[in-house]
Amino acid sequence: MSKFSENVMSADNQQERLDKKWIVGFVDGEGCFHISINKLSKMTLGWQVLPEFRIVQHERDKEILYEIKSYFEFGIVTKNHGDRMEFRVRGIDNLNKIVKFFKNNPLKTSKQKNFEFFAKVIEMMNERKHLTDNGLKEIAKLCYSMNRKVKPRYLESSETIRQNS
Amino acid sequence: MSKFSENVMSADNQQERLDKKWIVGFVDGEGCFHISINKLSKMTLGWQVLPEFRIVQHERDKEILYEIKSYFEFGIVTKNHGDRMEFRVRGIDNLNKIVKFFKNNPLKTSKQKNFEFFAKVIEMMNERKHLTDNGLKEIAKLCYSMNRKVKPRYLESSETIRQNS
Repeated sequence: MSKFSENVMSADNQQERLDKKWIVGFVDGEGCFHISINKLSKMTLGWQVLPEFRIVQHERDKEILYEIKSYFEFGIVTKNHGDRMEFRVRGIDNLNKIVKFFKNNPLKTSKQKNFEFFAKVIEMMNERKHLTDNGLKEIAKLCYSMNRKVKPRYLESSETIRQNS
Repeated sequence: MSKFSENVMSADNQQERLDKKWIVGFVDGEGCFHISINKLSKMTLGWQVLPEFRIVQHERDKEILYEIKSYFEFGIVTKNHGDRMEFRVRGIDNLNKIVKFFKNNPLKTSKQKNFEFFAKVIEMMNERKHLTDNGLKEIAKLCYSMNRKVKPRYLESSETIRQNS
């Protein structure tokens, strides 16, 4: 047992399942809905769409990440970088469950907007639209709206192609 | 009405009071229990103990800070720095209410430990121990435990005095 759980949590608390409203509040603060589009030659269009849901904490708080994993019954707790750990969900089946959870339990900060973009991309992936040129372009634009500052390499690359053709 | 509230919240949601478990989750992520000890010549011992509870957000999420203020019915929403805003509670009466809230609704991360130091200092201030030499020294040590990296100037100063005497 970690020092944290010895200090902070009683034996009773440890068996108690997290409350979904606590999870929404914590994710409003610490959660991240992220989609990357990575160059991957083995994919149909040469690009892989990689959506993930993450909660990053200092390693001193890894216990809470394991509790969140227990709550959802999927995802992994793994190293983020340096002294940071993350709870991470990848894979379309589990991400559909995450989307369902936050549709039933809406976020209260502007992170809700990011979630809505994320949910839209997951819906498109359910319909396999990420395997079509137009679908991939639409997803890339949604990503650009989500992440604000970072333009996906895919969009830069496709615009370069358009400008040069 | 801000763009955020137009986008994210329905008229109904706006009237809905925040759930206390959501608040605990959000504070586990974003809250800060902070105590500073500032040199202030008009105070009995020449030092002022200034405890505060803060939640800092990007200004795009100031609406949620106002909702938290409405929930507690005290505190202020004010500029933090740059594009950051904060919900802030100072003053022993309101901080006693904050302490009561988090005693009834414990935090789940290691921030609980910080809260316990904070609650201890508030208790000592209720007993006016911060106005005695020994009390102030004890508070300074609790602050040092809370903030880990930052040694209060008061402690440095009192150690300097001891070494030189």
